[in-house]
Amino acid sequence: MQTVKNVLFIMSDQLRWDYLSCYGHPVLQTPNIDRLAARGVRFDAAYVQSAVCVPSRMSYYTGRYVTSHGASWNYVPLSIVQQTFGDFMAAREREVALAGKTHVIPDYRGIERVGLDPATGQGAHFRRGGFVELDRYDGHAVPGPESGYADYLRANGYVGDDPWNQYVVGALDEAGNFASGWLLRNAHLPARVAKEHSETAYMTDCAINYIGEKGEQPWILHLSYIKPHWPMMAPDPYHALYRDADTGPIVGTAKPEHEPHPVLDAYRRAHEDCLSHSKEEVVRHVRPTYMGLVKELDDQIGRLMAELERMDRLKDTMIVFCSDHGDFLGDHGLGEKELFYEQAVRVPLIIYDPRAEADATRGTAEKRFVESIDVLPTMLDALGVPVPEHIIEGRALTPLLHGAAVDDWRDCVFSELDYSFRDARRLLGRSPDECHAWMVRTARWKYVHYKGLRPQLFDLQADPLELEDLGADARYEQVRAEMHARLADWQLNLKWRTGIDNASVERGTEGWKNIDMKIGVW
Amino acid sequence: MQTVKNVLFIMSDQLRWDYLSCYGHPVLQTPNIDRLAARGVRFDAAYVQSAVCVPSRMSYYTGRYVTSHGASWNYVPLSIVQQTFGDFMAAREREVALAGKTHVIPDYRGIERVGLDPATGQGAHFRRGGFVELDRYDGHAVPGPESGYADYLRANGYVGDDPWNQYVVGALDEAGNFASGWLLRNAHLPARVAKEHSETAYMTDCAINYIGEKGEQPWILHLSYIKPHWPMMAPDPYHALYRDADTGPIVGTAKPEHEPHPVLDAYRRAHEDCLSHSKEEVVRHVRPTYMGLVKELDDQIGRLMAELERMDRLKDTMIVFCSDHGDFLGDHGLGEKELFYEQAVRVPLIIYDPRAEADATRGTAEKRFVESIDVLPTMLDALGVPVPEHIIEGRALTPLLHGAAVDDWRDCVFSELDYSFRDARRLLGRSPDECHAWMVRTARWKYVHYKGLRPQLFDLQADPLELEDLGADARYEQVRAEMHARLADWQLNLKWRTGIDNASVERGTEGWKNIDMKIGVW
Repeated sequence: MQTVKNVLFIMSDQLRWDYLSCYGHPVLQTPNIDRLAARGVRFDAAYVQSAVCVPSRMSYYTGRYVTSHGASWNYVPLSIVQQTFGDFMAAREREVALAGKTHVIPDYRGIERVGLDPATGQGAHFRRGGFVELDRYDGHAVPGPESGYADYLRANGYVGDDPWNQYVVGALDEAGNFASGWLLRNAHLPARVAKEHSETAYMTDCAINYIGEKGEQPWILHLSYIKPHWPMMAPDPYHALYRDADTGPIVGTAKPEHEPHPVLDAYRRAHEDCLSHSKEEVVRHVRPTYMGLVKELDDQIGRLMAELERMDRLKDTMIVFCSDHGDFLGDHGLGEKELFYEQAVRVPLIIYDPRAEADATRGTAEKRFVESIDVLPTMLDALGVPVPEHIIEGRALTPLLHGAAVDDWRDCVFSELDYSFRDARRLLGRSPDECHAWMVRTARWKYVHYKGLRPQLFDLQADPLELEDLGADARYEQVRAEMHARLADWQLNLKWRTGIDNASVERGTEGWKNIDMKIGVW
Repeated sequence: MQTVKNVLFIMSDQLRWDYLSCYGHPVLQTPNIDRLAARGVRFDAAYVQSAVCVPSRMSYYTGRYVTSHGASWNYVPLSIVQQTFGDFMAAREREVALAGKTHVIPDYRGIERVGLDPATGQGAHFRRGGFVELDRYDGHAVPGPESGYADYLRANGYVGDDPWNQYVVGALDEAGNFASGWLLRNAHLPARVAKEHSETAYMTDCAINYIGEKGEQPWILHLSYIKPHWPMMAPDPYHALYRDADTGPIVGTAKPEHEPHPVLDAYRRAHEDCLSHSKEEVVRHVRPTYMGLVKELDDQIGRLMAELERMDRLKDTMIVFCSDHGDFLGDHGLGEKELFYEQAVRVPLIIYDPRAEADATRGTAEKRFVESIDVLPTMLDALGVPVPEHIIEGRALTPLLHGAAVDDWRDCVFSELDYSFRDARRLLGRSPDECHAWMVRTARWKYVHYKGLRPQLFDLQADPLELEDLGADARYEQVRAEMHARLADWQLNLKWRTGIDNASVERGTEGWKNIDMKIGVW
């Protein structure tokens, strides 16, 4: 099969699966992303390996579950032995360029232990998670030299030490005082940045420039937006577009007779984002801004797609559009993400494959379960790189994209959470080693195993909103046992022998590249 | 508590737990090892994490289960991110010296990937598994420059390109022709080396010299013998000491009505060592040599202990004596090791702690379950090094050595096997990813889960010889389910967040040494 020449791997941050019109949002119209879906396949059951930025992204970048790559939460480094998209392509002498966010936490201890300088060469490669950073901006803090965004802002008249905070996620309130977008109460105000200069526009510019400069040269680009993630502030006109719109139902906090799960309860009680989002007026104030940020994203995707068309790149470019996790937006009495409700772990995933083999599936919706670890092997496969089966735990989606027969596709998905860094842990009085949770979701059931605590169980057929937690209901003991067995099987099947590829194992004692031959056969 | 000044960590290779008189062998007398046991604690239920050299040793050296360190069989490298005894001590500016075998398979791909030279500096440190090699000799092949043994042999008159094979594991048969010790039929012949020059004597010399040179300086030494591992050839008089002795019963091949487990059956049919050891005449021919090699080892331990006494080092030296796994010696129709019968996974373990706190337990037998991953934290603890809980999966045996109350000790042990490199896999037509097996052993039951195949189950109370495999017996479904649940729990509790220590997790957002501060809090 022909390979694709270029890959454009677009990630949005905290974009909830159902906040796109192609996924059925009744109010928010996202025609540009919808058009991409019409050209490719829309995956309707795509799940992330963790509903937290770092672990989810590291699963996208390594093709491995969180237990396997170990970067379990936002402060945990990506070990230098974990190979990423950039590593696999570097071995083929191709670069994976980055415009935007990766949230790779550098493994400084590991880099130091092998005697490398994190500033240069291979040390910098590890620090960057294998990406070649055109412009890296993770958001949340003053951009460093790895981003040109602060200088760009200043050059466009946004003068200050920290123009992102001062202008892009900052506003002036009715009295003319500075109002930070970090505070939800300011979500209705327009950012002090023109939409042409927002992070979303800037990173789109960066991508368009890179693709244009490449001309007919092949390229691989990860365009990774930091929106619609909090801070909740959008530039004009996006701040106001949905101010009076219907912002939809708010999923409640379960039937009163249900004792909330201890971790759920602790999240609600310990975390500011949950406390804020438990109030309807906050949710009604925030959702219009979130919708505006998604609309802005869609407009920028439209601009990008138009440029790709103008440059005639749709003929040879695979485009992946995805998100690292969703956003509760007040559902279940929660803000942000982390826990395993559909709002957090289910994501939009659209893949456009330019090859003729994919013509049969264009514009279709794929209902089979896919996981974010499938994205990397899909891209590798499209680029003609053999997927290293002894390392990568995802499956290439190529047969699904090409309408090929597959008779052993997965019937469940997995996701994980490490809440040891969170105040919820302290409230529960648990040690850092006691805070691992795992989700298994089948077509009907969602089971969450919490180390040392009772599980959660939801019947998604009878209770699609996940309001009735059957985790302590004696009638469902058999279901829980079956779901737990799936979890155990999954864990026992993780890739453990990553130091030698399967072909070398097959060859037996011959041809070990990695063996000190002096040692010989036992 | 006072720390110990020195640690002497002695490992034998393939020494079966019941082939020492202190463990009850009726014929073979090992008074020197027995005396060590009389001074310390003899662990009567010590199990290795795999009954294969490399995975077992890497578990000893890292304090981690095989799934966690990933060096699953004898050809699989130890990843450079796995920290060993040598690493943990290097962080305290202390060296762990090596005399003998480690079987560390260098992670050349990993070393190359971080741009290091495996010949020098940190690259060599990784290649050596963190040990400072006084003299490394893994056996099995011509020693390289990391050992002085070949030159030593030549200097003592054993002239040749490969004096170990030519003299130490070589003999002359009755007709004066060369007879290799690799061939079991030559096991009765005396090696062409004087016992003073055998590997066992040579490495003991090496240890004595090192300890003597250190004088009152603190030291840590791993003395790691390559015997009584195959090749089965002993120097005079050890080759003949047990030639006419009672070499004990041979455990049979299960009751005829039991269909052997497919993997067991494949081992017996595919592997030369098993085919040979299935013949009683071979077993009767080999066991006297094995016993002779153990006797030789005991004599050398006696010489070493006498030197330690002479140097007054018993007052400040912790001594660990252990083995990497056992040897079937024909039991169960098997040779060598690998599978999960007691002959292979159970090992001798004796620990002498010089401190007064250990006086209460001297000469006692400890019946609680211990695992080989406990040895490293025990040594670290004795040396005053805090055990890194986020990495090490074993438990320091200090309370057991000191007779302290422990109310939550483990009630089962785990071991693993990767048989993907073995002909048994080919015979079974399985892929390299389908060859992982796990053992859980409680006081009563031994359960082995084979990926994709039926399990094994033995009732060790009713059937201590493990002749009756209940793995397919419908009456034991509940027992198997309970044992499988233990395995699942174990796997879910492996250490996964090794990139950040628990104290840093506790400190929360403050004090991250490993975080790129530019990224900041999300």
